[in-house]
Parts: sequence; C-alpha cells; structure tokens
Amino acid sequence: MKIIDLHRQVLILSLSVMAIAASAQTKPYTAYVDPFIGSEGLGNVFVGPSRPYGMVKPGPDVNKASNSGYSPDLDVPLYGFSQTHVSGTGGGPKYGNILIMPFAGNFNELKQESLRANEKASTGYYSVLLKQYGITAEITSTSKVAFYRFDFKPGTRKAIKFDAGDFLGEKPVPDAREAQQFIGSEVEVVSDNEIRGYSRIRGGWNNGAAYTVYFYAITDKPFNTFTTYKAGSLYPGIKLQADDGNKTGVLAYFDDASLQQIKVKIGISFISELKARQNIEQEAPHWSFEKVLADSQDSWNELLKRLELDSSTPAQQKTMFYTALYHTMLMPVDRSGENPLWQSAMPYYDDFYAIWDTFRSSNPLITLIDPSREAAIVNSLLNIYQRDGYMPDARSGNSNGRTQGGSNAEVLIADAYTKKLKGVNYNLGLEAMLKDATIPPGGNEEKEGRGGLTDYNSLGYISNRFVRAGNRTVEYAYNDYCLAIVADGLGRKGEYNRFIKQSNNWKNLWRPVTDHGATGFIMPKDASGRWIDSITCVESNGRVTAVPYTPLAQEWPNCVCWWCGFFYEASSWEYSFYVPHDVAALINNCGGPQAFKQRLDTFFNNGYYNVGNEPSFLTPNLYHWIGRPDLSSTRIRQIIQKNYNSSRDGLPGNDDSGAMSSWLAFHVLGLYPNAGQSYYLINSPLIKQSVLHQTNGKDFKITAKNLSEANQFIQAALLNGKPFNQAWIEHQDIVNGGELVLLMGPKQTGWGNSMMPPSKGDEK
Amino acid sequence: MKIIDLHRQVLILSLSVMAIAASAQTKPYTAYVDPFIGSEGLGNVFVGPSRPYGMVKPGPDVNKASNSGYSPDLDVPLYGFSQTHVSGTGGGPKYGNILIMPFAGNFNELKQESLRANEKASTGYYSVLLKQYGITAEITSTSKVAFYRFDFKPGTRKAIKFDAGDFLGEKPVPDAREAQQFIGSEVEVVSDNEIRGYSRIRGGWNNGAAYTVYFYAITDKPFNTFTTYKAGSLYPGIKLQADDGNKTGVLAYFDDASLQQIKVKIGISFISELKARQNIEQEAPHWSFEKVLADSQDSWNELLKRLELDSSTPAQQKTMFYTALYHTMLMPVDRSGENPLWQSAMPYYDDFYAIWDTFRSSNPLITLIDPSREAAIVNSLLNIYQRDGYMPDARSGNSNGRTQGGSNAEVLIADAYTKKLKGVNYNLGLEAMLKDATIPPGGNEEKEGRGGLTDYNSLGYISNRFVRAGNRTVEYAYNDYCLAIVADGLGRKGEYNRFIKQSNNWKNLWRPVTDHGATGFIMPKDASGRWIDSITCVESNGRVTAVPYTPLAQEWPNCVCWWCGFFYEASSWEYSFYVPHDVAALINNCGGPQAFKQRLDTFFNNGYYNVGNEPSFLTPNLYHWIGRPDLSSTRIRQIIQKNYNSSRDGLPGNDDSGAMSSWLAFHVLGLYPNAGQSYYLINSPLIKQSVLHQTNGKDFKITAKNLSEANQFIQAALLNGKPFNQAWIEHQDIVNGGELVLLMGPKQTGWGNSMMPPSKGDEK
Repeated sequence: MKIIDLHRQVLILSLSVMAIAASAQTKPYTAYVDPFIGSEGLGNVFVGPSRPYGMVKPGPDVNKASNSGYSPDLDVPLYGFSQTHVSGTGGGPKYGNILIMPFAGNFNELKQESLRANEKASTGYYSVLLKQYGITAEITSTSKVAFYRFDFKPGTRKAIKFDAGDFLGEKPVPDAREAQQFIGSEVEVVSDNEIRGYSRIRGGWNNGAAYTVYFYAITDKPFNTFTTYKAGSLYPGIKLQADDGNKTGVLAYFDDASLQQIKVKIGISFISELKARQNIEQEAPHWSFEKVLADSQDSWNELLKRLELDSSTPAQQKTMFYTALYHTMLMPVDRSGENPLWQSAMPYYDDFYAIWDTFRSSNPLITLIDPSREAAIVNSLLNIYQRDGYMPDARSGNSNGRTQGGSNAEVLIADAYTKKLKGVNYNLGLEAMLKDATIPPGGNEEKEGRGGLTDYNSLGYISNRFVRAGNRTVEYAYNDYCLAIVADGLGRKGEYNRFIKQSNNWKNLWRPVTDHGATGFIMPKDASGRWIDSITCVESNGRVTAVPYTPLAQEWPNCVCWWCGFFYEASSWEYSFYVPHDVAALINNCGGPQAFKQRLDTFFNNGYYNVGNEPSFLTPNLYHWIGRPDLSSTRIRQIIQKNYNSSRDGLPGNDDSGAMSSWLAFHVLGLYPNAGQSYYLINSPLIKQSVLHQTNGKDFKITAKNLSEANQFIQAALLNGKPFNQAWIEHQDIVNGGELVLLMGPKQTGWGNSMMPPSKGDEK
Repeated sequence: MKIIDLHRQVLILSLSVMAIAASAQTKPYTAYVDPFIGSEGLGNVFVGPSRPYGMVKPGPDVNKASNSGYSPDLDVPLYGFSQTHVSGTGGGPKYGNILIMPFAGNFNELKQESLRANEKASTGYYSVLLKQYGITAEITSTSKVAFYRFDFKPGTRKAIKFDAGDFLGEKPVPDAREAQQFIGSEVEVVSDNEIRGYSRIRGGWNNGAAYTVYFYAITDKPFNTFTTYKAGSLYPGIKLQADDGNKTGVLAYFDDASLQQIKVKIGISFISELKARQNIEQEAPHWSFEKVLADSQDSWNELLKRLELDSSTPAQQKTMFYTALYHTMLMPVDRSGENPLWQSAMPYYDDFYAIWDTFRSSNPLITLIDPSREAAIVNSLLNIYQRDGYMPDARSGNSNGRTQGGSNAEVLIADAYTKKLKGVNYNLGLEAMLKDATIPPGGNEEKEGRGGLTDYNSLGYISNRFVRAGNRTVEYAYNDYCLAIVADGLGRKGEYNRFIKQSNNWKNLWRPVTDHGATGFIMPKDASGRWIDSITCVESNGRVTAVPYTPLAQEWPNCVCWWCGFFYEASSWEYSFYVPHDVAALINNCGGPQAFKQRLDTFFNNGYYNVGNEPSFLTPNLYHWIGRPDLSSTRIRQIIQKNYNSSRDGLPGNDDSGAMSSWLAFHVLGLYPNAGQSYYLINSPLIKQSVLHQTNGKDFKITAKNLSEANQFIQAALLNGKPFNQAWIEHQDIVNGGELVLLMGPKQTGWGNSMMPPSKGDEK
C-alpha cells in the first residue's frame, strides 16, 4: 500500500516537474560555468577559452612552473598568452607553445610583461587588463584557432610579440625528468599581417618524444615594421629565422597612433603551418570576435543542456555542477586530422592525462552526455594501439607515457562494451587488452603497457623487485576482470577463464595484519613469497634506516622517489579498498560486513581517506555492499560539503583533466558509476530533479521527492512507476529512458539493504 | 740469417717504393670509383652522387620496388630523381622522397617518364639522357643540397615537376610490413623561382615511425606559369597546397623557347623548409655546377688518398678497391644539426642499415681511414641511446628498428675501446651495453635491444619459444664478450665476471650431432633443455609436416616467415663457426685442429659458405687459428676471384651499406679485422704495396715483396725491420706507423703456424 501511495505522489510530482521544465532555463547553461573554479589552490585548471575537447587552449601565462600557465597571484606579472595548455594536471608542465603578447613601450625589449586587473573568464571567453600598457586583451577560440582582440590606449605606438620559443616547464638540465626540453623553432614574416612558424619541444610530465606546434597568425590591421629575433638578438626587417636550434620570434609594430583595436587569429596545427592557415580558413574565415564566441558558447550549451537540473536548484549549485561538466569535457583533445604520425580513418585524440585519473568518473560521465564522443575516444585508443603498439594510460604531445598503475584503458573498453556503446570494434579492443596483459612493454616500463608484468604473470602478484608493486597488482587484477568480461561477451572462453581467475590476484598480496582495528591489507612481498616487514629508507641526511612497513606507511617521496613506492600516491589503507569487481570478496577478506563497516568508518573518521586523489573515488560508495547505501550517501555529502565549493579554490585536488569535477557531477545527480561495469550506484541526490536528455531522444529523469535539508535519506524508490528496491541501476535502464523517483525522508529506512550491488561472485 | 737477408731485401724494396710513391698517382683517386659496380645483380647500390656520409643522395628512380630506386633495365622508363636514397640494402625500400622530373610535352599530365640513354656516373656525378624529351639531366650534390642541370632541346616549351608525394616501396595495404606508408605532403610556390614543401612518410624496411623530408627548391631561371596539384587534380596558379593527408606537387613551366639550360638546387632538411633553404645558403650559395662537383670530388679524394695502392696496381684492381672504399663511406649518414627529435652537442647519424651488416668490416675500415669519423659514429649511437633508450642495430628515418640478431652496436663500442679511439665516453658506452644486456626491450622485440633476453638471461640460451634463437644466442655471446672487455678495461670487475662467463653461452646450444663429417652444431633447444629434432612446417598447400632439423636446414621462408627461423638468413653450418672471441674453444668443441680443418674444407668445398651474407665474413680466416694462415689466404683469393669483379654485377650480394665492399677492401690490403677486438689477421695481399696515410701523420705501409701469380704465400714477415712470426697485427702497431713487409713465395712455409691469434682463453 505504501508503494501505491508513493506511486500516486510521484505522478503528481512528475506533472509539477514538467511544468517547471517548460518554464525553466531562461539563462543559457554556459552562464553557470565559472572557469575560475579550481584556479586557486590545488585545482590547476585552465582558465582560458576552449571548445569542447578543443585542440587549442589559448590562455594567460603567468608562471612557467604552473601546469596551466596560470597563477592567481596578482603580484606576479603576466608575460603572454600561449595557445596550448592542459587543465588540472600535476607534475611537470606540458605545452604553453606559441606565445603572443601585446605591448606598448620598451619596444626593443624581448621581455614584455605586465601586472593584470579585471580578469574575466566565462565559457569560451577570457579577458584581462594589462596594467603596464593599458591594454585590454580578450580571447575566444574555435577548436583549432585562437582569436584575440586587443584594445590599446589611443595615441600610443603599439606592438605585438609572437614568440615561437616560449613554453612551460623548462629546466636548464638536459633531459631533466618531467621538464619540457627545447628542440627548435622557426618564424617567418609572410606579409604585413601574416606570421608563421613553429615550436618543437620534447619531454614534459609524460617524458614524451618531440612534438611540433605549427602556427599561422593573421592580424586584422597591417603592421608597419617588424623585427624578427633569434637567440636573444634582434634582426629588424629580416623576414626569416630558420630553425638552427634556437628560440625565435617576431615583434610586429603598429605605428598608427589612431589605431585602438587589433585582432589576431592564430591558427594552430600539429601537421604544418599551411594546415594551421587552413584551420583558420575553415573555422574562422571572418573577423567577428562575437561570432566565434557565440559559436563557442553554442557548442558548450549543446552539451550542457543535456543534463538539465531542476530550475529551483540554487545558482551556486548549478554553477558547481555545470562547471564540473565543463571541466570534464576539456580533455582529452580531439586531434582527428592533426596526427603527424600516421593516417587513419579512425578518430585521433591526444592528451589523455591520464586515464588513471579519468576512467573512474570522467569517461562514464561523457558516456552519459555524449555516447558517440566516448566511442570516438575509445576508438582513438584503438587507433593508437594499432600504430604505436599499446593503448596509452597517459598520452600527450603525440607520445604515450606515463603509466602510474594499471593499464586502465582496458577499463574504458570494458565500460564501453558493457554499456553497449556502438561503433567500437570490440574484437580489436580485446586484442589491445590482451597485448597489455601478455606482452611486457620492456625498456621504459613507465611508457605504456603493464610494468612488472613478468612478475605478475608468473607469481600472480608483483614483488618488491618492481616499484609500485602494490597498486599495480590491485589495478591489474581489476584490468584482468575487465578483459575477462569482454572476452566472455565475445565468446572467447579461454581468455575469459584465464583472466577471471587472475582477477583474484589482489588476494596474493592480502596480508592478515591488523592496523587500527582493521585486519587484512595489501602489503609488499618478495619474489619468493616472503612478506616484507620493513623498507630501506635513504633519508635526506644520507642516513640509511629500516622503516617498518605499515598500512599507513608512505615511504615516498622521502625514502624513495615519488614513483618508487609500494603504492602510487596513496597508502595501503586506501588501495586495500580497491577491488571494484568483487567487493563481496573484499568484505569477506576483511572479516564480514560488520568489520567492513567499522573499517570504512575508521578510514573516513581517522582521515585516511584522501578526497584529492583518484584511488579512493569509489570508496565512499562501498557501504552499498553491506546494505547501507544511506551511509554512502552521508559520507558523500560530508565529503562534498567539506571539500567542494564554487570559489576559485573550490576543488580539493588537481582537477586531473576533470576527474575531480566529474566525481562531483555524478554525486549531484545521485548516481555513481563503477567504471568498467554496466551499473551506477544510487545515492541521495543533491538536487531535487535532473533530466538527462539523451542523444537517442529518450529522457531519463531522476526525482528526489521531498528532498530537503531534513530529508536526505532514500525511503523508497520507483523506476518507471514500479518499486525499485536495489541501490544501483543498470546503464540500459537509463538508455531506455524513463524516471527514477526517490522518496526522501529524515532517516534511513532500510531501502537498498536486501540486494547488494554486483560482485564477481563465487560461481565464476 | 734468412731473416737478416730478408731485412736487407726489405730495405731495398722500401726505397724503391718511396720512389714509386713520389712519382705515383697522376690521376685523382676518384677516377677509380665506379658507382655502377653493384648496380646490377644483387648489389642494390645507389648510383647517384653523394658526399661522404652525405645526407642527400639524389638519383634516378626507375623502379618503385627497388631499394636504390635504380634499375639497370633500360626498357623500364625513368620517372624522376628523388633526393634521398640508401645504398645496397635489401627488404622493403626506404626514402625516395621529393621527386624532380624535367619534361617537355604532355604538359598537363602528372605522370612523366622517359626511357634513358647515355647514363654516366662518377664520384659526385650522375647524368642521363631522357630520350622521350631529349633532355640531358646532370646531378651533383653537397651534403644537404642536390644540384641539377637540365639541358633541353632548344625551341621547345619546358617544364619541371616537383613531386612531394612520391616515395619508394608503397603498398596499398595499411601497415604492410616493410612498406613505406604515406602520411602527408605539402607544396608552396614561394616566388617565380622558389618552391618549398615536404613529404611525411612512415614504415619502410625498419618499420620506422614517421619522418619528414623538407625541401626548398630554387631554379636559376624564373618559371612563367605553374600549377600545383593535390590528389591527382591540377590547380593552375594556386600557390599553396596545405597538408590534408594528400599527395601534392608542382608543375613549373618555362615558356621561353630560347632557353636551353635550367639549373635547380634542392635543399633538403629533416628539420624544416627554412632549414632546407639555409642549407642551400650555407653549402651551395652559387650556381656553379662545376664547383659543387669539384668540391664533391675533393671531399672524396681527401679520404680515398689515405689508402694509397702501389702505382703498379692494375687499373681494374684499383677501381674495385677505391669503389669499395667509396661504398663503405656512403652510410651511415651524418645528420648532425638535422635531428628533429632532440638537441645535443653530440653527433647525430642516421641510416644504420644495419650494424649487423657493417660492424664486421665497414666500421673497422672507417676506423683505419678516418678514426675521428668512427668516433663520431660511435658517439651518435650513444647520443641515440641517451634519448631513445637503446642504441640501434638498425635505424633509418630517425627511428630505431630492426634487429636481425645481436645487439651489435656493442661490438662497435668494444672495437673503438680496444683500438683506443679518442673522444668517446666509454663509461657511457658501457652503460648503453648494459642496457642491451639486462633490460628486455619488450613490446616489439625487433625494434632495438636484445629480443629473447628473458630466456637468454635465465637459461643461458634462447629457447625455441623465440624466433631466431640460434643466431641471437651466438651473437649475444659475442656481444657479452665485447661488454666484458670494456667493463674489464674500466675496472668494472663485477660486470666483467658476469659477462665473460656469459660469453660461453654459445656452448649451451652446441649439440654433438654429426653432419657431413663434422660434429657439433648450434641446434635448437626448448626451454626445458630438450633438443629439438624437427620443426613444424606449414607448406604453401596448407599441409603441416614435421621436418627434421639438420645443420643444413633452412626452414625459412617456406615453413616459417623470413624472420622466424632458428637462424637469420643462414644455416647452422654457417653460424656454428661464429665464435669470434674464442675460436680456440670452438676448435676444441669441433674435435681439435684436424677435425676443424676438415670441417672448414667441407664448408667451402661443398658450397655451404655464402659469400653474399655477413654471418660468414670471418670464416675464411679461421684457418689462422689452426696455424694455417696460408689456407685462409687461399680461400679468400678463391672467393674474390669467383665472386667479385669490376663490372656492374661485381658484388656477390646486397652491398649492405658497403659491407660487401669493405670486406673486399680489407682483403686487397692483406688485413682482416676481428671486429670488437684490437687486431687484424694477416693474409696475402692482392697488391704489392699499400700505404695507409693516417690522420695522426704516421704512415703504415704493407709490402708484399715478390708478390706474383706464382708467389702468393707468405714465407716470412718483418714488422719495422724485425722478424714478425705471428699472422695477426695489433691496431696500435698500425697507429704507431711503420712497415709490415711480407716476403712472398710459391708455397706455404709454415709462417704463422706457431702462434695462434688471440682467443678468450681458458683462464678467464
């Protein structure tokens, strides 16, 4: 009876929601995007304009050691705008190529910089006042063209610098790890309003091979004179500076004192300068800044509107949500038609930075918003596998590298396969997965594939003779599960049997030690099978000590290098929860549901959980598997409340190409994916209603009836009007369209406590 | 007494030789270079002009499936001249980029070809009459610039095609093994006498990554009109064809009927088009074809004259000898300043094609003629190791790959080290060797490093679970010896002990089977240590059979792929002689000196020896180690007489970047190196006297006194006037200058039979 009552209530609610939807959204969705969220603190987001997955990301460069080029510190001068950036990354910077800087003074100086004011950023737009020169710089972009509008003080001589030698993250040491290294550059003054050239760089965070960023710049007003420069010397009137391994650029001078505004288009290409020119012709053949900006906003709106939030949602919450979606769709970067390494009819994406970060929530979010985009991304991985030999875990500058743990591109294949994404050759996908799982990458094991595979495939775990043995083992075990599921679906029983068995390999490092009341942890073991109790630590004073290895130990980066610990960027407390395919077995290994609950409570209450890093992304949801989805929801709310906000310091860690953001976005909706598998865990939404407008034409609505500060617990649920007592939902239920109604109340009522979400199961 | 007599005779001879030297050499040495030797038959040599180790190799393209582009078949039309070639290679072609073709008719056709006549080639020069058009084309070159002179029939309209889309070895199948694959191209008409552009290609024999050949072409007369083209369509008057993945080019038309001659300079660069232009400015700023040609001849003469043959040497012999030197110095190619992948102060060479071919005799010959050049080549390998991770065995198009057997760059390090070449960081060399020997290359084991290393380092041999297990094992054993020797010299006893022991690993595949009277052969073994008696053969009719594996078996390419046999390109009879560091142990394993002699005799008499392939390069010299250098000399004379001559078909196999040629050159002198070690075996020279004019200012002279058809045996020897009873000489004895006098007589007298050349020895 209760259920029928609920049903009636829901029908009423649905009607009222429809009314809301009809009247809703008067502002464009892009109005709720604030590119500055995450620009202070740890977020490292890119603040300049970009199209969705846009190749060009022009923006302010203030700090050469900054991953995004940006610094919020207004006391640090801005020195230009480069055309290529990544968003949210850590480690050594990448890109920052082809710098442009307007100036009005010290005309024969190469160094031009200015303090700034009036910074503004919105979707597809950035502007700033360069106080030193009284110049207002505005930027917008197409996918492959940066578009600048500079407003000068009237009555002055004006100049613009085009620097082909500048880039982020340079260090004087040859081959410094993670540093970008200069190879060469070239500039050429083509006419009195055209300049072309390139910048050739290697290295950066992924220690990648050489990449070349070609440009073709056009000004809307002719310059009167110019000087090229090379290696710090000026060459007035000399049009060509050939690449002999030096840094080059052009200073273009505009002598007309009445001139107030100069617009510049910079076409970018990874193929050639003429291709960069062609990109301008194809994407921005006109001089309307407004049109480029409007097109950019339209392209974002088209995507953002697919997730419609209840109109009553507070603006701050909308801003956090749509900015999160925005951050999720900045990367990877669509470089189809811009691959200098091979021809292929398949899509080509770059700047997977890294899949270790994005596979958990970013790619699943893209799958919901834009499934054909996710299929293209997966296909680009297979394209790379076919020609480069392995799918990347990270790739940037057309070069695979680096791999922090598992070969997690496999999770994307399995995620696409189990969610039935169309247009992917899954047999080829399985081949790529098998390459990872069977052929050691050799040489540089950070580049691609599975490092330590020889141990893993012979011992069933990675021994202490390899770095990152702990997280590699648990991640490979999950990768093996993903491989097995795809193999099973394709009728490849032999591979299925092998890899479903290997997916238990995490158990081979499961040691029954007790720490802070919890028993059983992933711990280091040597190749002969002996547990390792302590690790050798070389301290900064040169003293060598033996440090006990405990589940909270963090031997990196003090005892060993950052990448050289047993776990990558987390402790055993964190990684020992990482068994996404078999949480039931994990619970069992931990001593059963009650012990597992206590373990989770200890984890969160004692601060062992690290909100800013991806290994624990799923962990708050693990209460679901002991029948307590309410506890998952409570934890998630606490985490968000404490760590996320709409300020510039609103992200709790490196956004990691949108990973932090996409985690938030899912929890706003009340869903969270277990990437590689076909379902989403259901939590209490943070908003009353959301509608996913799918590209198949079918809407899926989630309604949290009676949601309020007081009513945060799911009492009951209906899927398409029928009682729904499980705390997870299949992807196909969403694809088919419909409505999930969650009846909210003031305490947990036992909803979702009788059916546990999927685990691998003992039968397999 | 005999010795003193000899001494006196030698003194007299020396004086007469000095007289000869003074009067000698009226013609330049380049007069004795015939680039056509090896252009017919199997030689595959490049016939166009090149500077020593020159980056640019412009020449005629007649056959797209030909490795050199050339075909001697005059019934096949010539379709142009491309700027990049390799010499003497086999397998899938590489390069053939940026094609130029003059024509005079069918002006709107893209296909232009002509039968040819009057082909001439000499050092730095090639010319041909294009019968179809009555055009004489002449070519010369600097290191990085091709220089053309076209003479047209007067009174006609003229045209020149510049094709950026053409290249050798294209196949329609994507990623066809060893085929070059098109990525993109671009052309741009800069002015009425300048055209620039590039060609971007991947693949080829070494299955390499993308490389880009940029060009800048200048004509000495302006063209009146032009049409660019792309993907087969003409675009009259359109100056730019941006790279959108299609083949592009330019047809330039010269309408002045009175015009008879057009000269064209094509600068080439692997960096950029402007760098190609700069290369013209730096290397050929003028329009004098004669000056470029004379400079080219001078640069060759400067090297060739360092090995001066007795003036009485017949011209035919001189031609064979100096052409052999010429062939040896065509490759690798000096690309210092042209590396698009990284900056380095170290030299950069490309087109090691392959070291497996050249380490045995080509590099040692370069060491004699030009030690600083060899040091630069070795340094370029270390440069590549530092940035690409491994030294190449083969490298082309800036990309490591492929490795046929051992990691033989190590032999070059050891050769340089034991010969005390200056300017090489041998500690870095040892590091690079250790990388090969300890870190499996993984992924694609053909690319670099040691394939099958996991077996080799755990079992002491490579089992039948890896292809090419036989030659990999014996070659790694020698590589290990080379590593050990360098480690020993650098005081690294630990590494010395490990690798000197591993250098015995060839014994682990030594099976005491008997074949044609010889006992003991390198034979296949499985990972458990069981010998393999037969191999599975999949015949072309699909029938699967078990074929007995014998020392003469050649299962490739009929049963398995070319690269998939137990040995690469040779039989066990050939490879079982390959223990260059421990011939004494080999002899012992074969049953002692008498059995070994018989084995060698059977090898040569039964035709098991393959003159055209490198694995047996040292084998004719193995009689030295049983005290019978006379038998070595006799075999060598027979081999040369039967297989080498001064005709166009004068090389017995692919010249392999000069390997076949350098083998001949050494034997003309009466020396032969055991590469990686510090000595040369002494044989009967083919000429009466040679003088090595060394770059240290010291001459070393070899005189074969009384040499004649009848007197081909060394009776006795004097080194710097002192009796010299060993049949090998140390490199330092040559470096120090002096004279080796060999007294020749009609039969062998036992000279060299008491002291055997070095072997590793049992004590180690």
